[in-house]
Amino acid sequence: MGRVTERRRVVRVRGGVAGTRPDTLVAEEPLEIRLGGKPLAITMRTPGDDFALAVGFLVSEGVVGSADDVRAVTYCEGAAEDGSNTYNVVNVQLAPGVALPDITLERNVYTTSSCGLCGKASLDAVRTATRFPPAADPVRLPVGLVGELPDRLRAAQKVFDRTGGLHAAGLFSAGGELLDVREDVGRHNAVDKIIGRAVQAGRLPLAGSVLLVSGRASFELAQKAVMAGIPVLAAVSAPSSLAVDLAQEAGLTLIGFLRGGDMNIYAGEERIEFPAPVGQGVSQRP
Amino acid sequence: MGRVTERRRVVRVRGGVAGTRPDTLVAEEPLEIRLGGKPLAITMRTPGDDFALAVGFLVSEGVVGSADDVRAVTYCEGAAEDGSNTYNVVNVQLAPGVALPDITLERNVYTTSSCGLCGKASLDAVRTATRFPPAADPVRLPVGLVGELPDRLRAAQKVFDRTGGLHAAGLFSAGGELLDVREDVGRHNAVDKIIGRAVQAGRLPLAGSVLLVSGRASFELAQKAVMAGIPVLAAVSAPSSLAVDLAQEAGLTLIGFLRGGDMNIYAGEERIEFPAPVGQGVSQRP
Repeated sequence: MGRVTERRRVVRVRGGVAGTRPDTLVAEEPLEIRLGGKPLAITMRTPGDDFALAVGFLVSEGVVGSADDVRAVTYCEGAAEDGSNTYNVVNVQLAPGVALPDITLERNVYTTSSCGLCGKASLDAVRTATRFPPAADPVRLPVGLVGELPDRLRAAQKVFDRTGGLHAAGLFSAGGELLDVREDVGRHNAVDKIIGRAVQAGRLPLAGSVLLVSGRASFELAQKAVMAGIPVLAAVSAPSSLAVDLAQEAGLTLIGFLRGGDMNIYAGEERIEFPAPVGQGVSQRP
Repeated sequence: MGRVTERRRVVRVRGGVAGTRPDTLVAEEPLEIRLGGKPLAITMRTPGDDFALAVGFLVSEGVVGSADDVRAVTYCEGAAEDGSNTYNVVNVQLAPGVALPDITLERNVYTTSSCGLCGKASLDAVRTATRFPPAADPVRLPVGLVGELPDRLRAAQKVFDRTGGLHAAGLFSAGGELLDVREDVGRHNAVDKIIGRAVQAGRLPLAGSVLLVSGRASFELAQKAVMAGIPVLAAVSAPSSLAVDLAQEAGLTLIGFLRGGDMNIYAGEERIEFPAPVGQGVSQRP
């Protein structure tokens, strides 16, 4: 309720120097939309205006055309393990006489990725399900090398410059070599293509590698990295709160706002190496 | 196959002057992923690497962990009405002994929006289903007013400046008045919230209005505009090919790359008014 932003501790790197400070992240939580008590869809959203979101979704589905078509919209109780209301499940009751949609999940609803029913459950599910937990990955990356990756990705992008409409995902080795790059209208698809090609080449788990995405780092992308055993996810733009939560729980290094050599590190900063301060080598004499 | 980009005619407006030229758009088409012959998910993707996309999706779902888990990946035949292969349906056969997922669509797959099974079918479905076809909307907008809308939206955005992680959607009157603005980690959610609030206020159909989105214009967003009776959709970034197709079929005005007063008009350009050329008032003497 009103959790539009959340505060997190972040390691802020500017000019190669790291400092710790609080940062404001956009909140991301799953919302399950039920119709007449039956689950219809789950979307990752920023909390707020949840009833409007559910009703607007039903307009897009062709179910609702006016306020009169909706009898009631309510939060469902008892969605959390302790029986409390997570405010992440909304039920829409249609007015009498309004036809239920001919939407069946098999036919009409398209999906982008998976998560559990609510934030807590989905995080647990991911942590349990991955065969390749990144927490144990010993890879270390110099901060300067990480800062160069966006330029290397951009140099390899083929379609973006022509259309401006594509997201890119690049897979790098720990040495900064670009192993693969895919572009897609959906950022999750670009990542799925990267991971799928790695499977086909027998390269899973992708230990010691870095996944760089051209846009933001959502929960969905962090989840995909964890499932493929990728230890470092970097994004040119902002991460969501749920992506940071997952990264911290799974031992994934999560970097955001990676631009011009600067970056914010939201989780797993122990994998990023900084140059020794000038004079360190002579500072240990007794 | 290999349809990563598509060419479309576009009205290009620079410095208030319009010219027509071809433009390159990123291709967007639905891909249905089947597992053992059963529909599992539909995603809007850029064609190419479809087998990798399907396999990578299954890694994210925890179904596949190595190439050995996959027996075969094939395009399904007969997906189009004439029986030809659209290359938009992929079936994955798991290797013997690999457990089918405990994924049920009701529980584990989250959804963002709806479309039909393939590009053609979904376009037909949208055109049939909307109660408020925008084609008949007589609204006209001066090009100069359209060019000012992004600044007006940005001035009203609350959370973006703090987090950098939000998409915004703004609803404007034909006079350029900002009627509503919503921000969300998902651009489709921001639009659903705008439309849902309009439903709750008894304002559907949103005739004569302009929907402005901060990012790209996907098929999904064009579909939502059409379903709500919005006649003009403008985006700060690029549209996809399928969004343009839908706009042209539904009579939706679709504007992309709306920046600094310049824009590309991909459909419905008759709704955008340009100033009369200097001297036009005296040019009609015989």
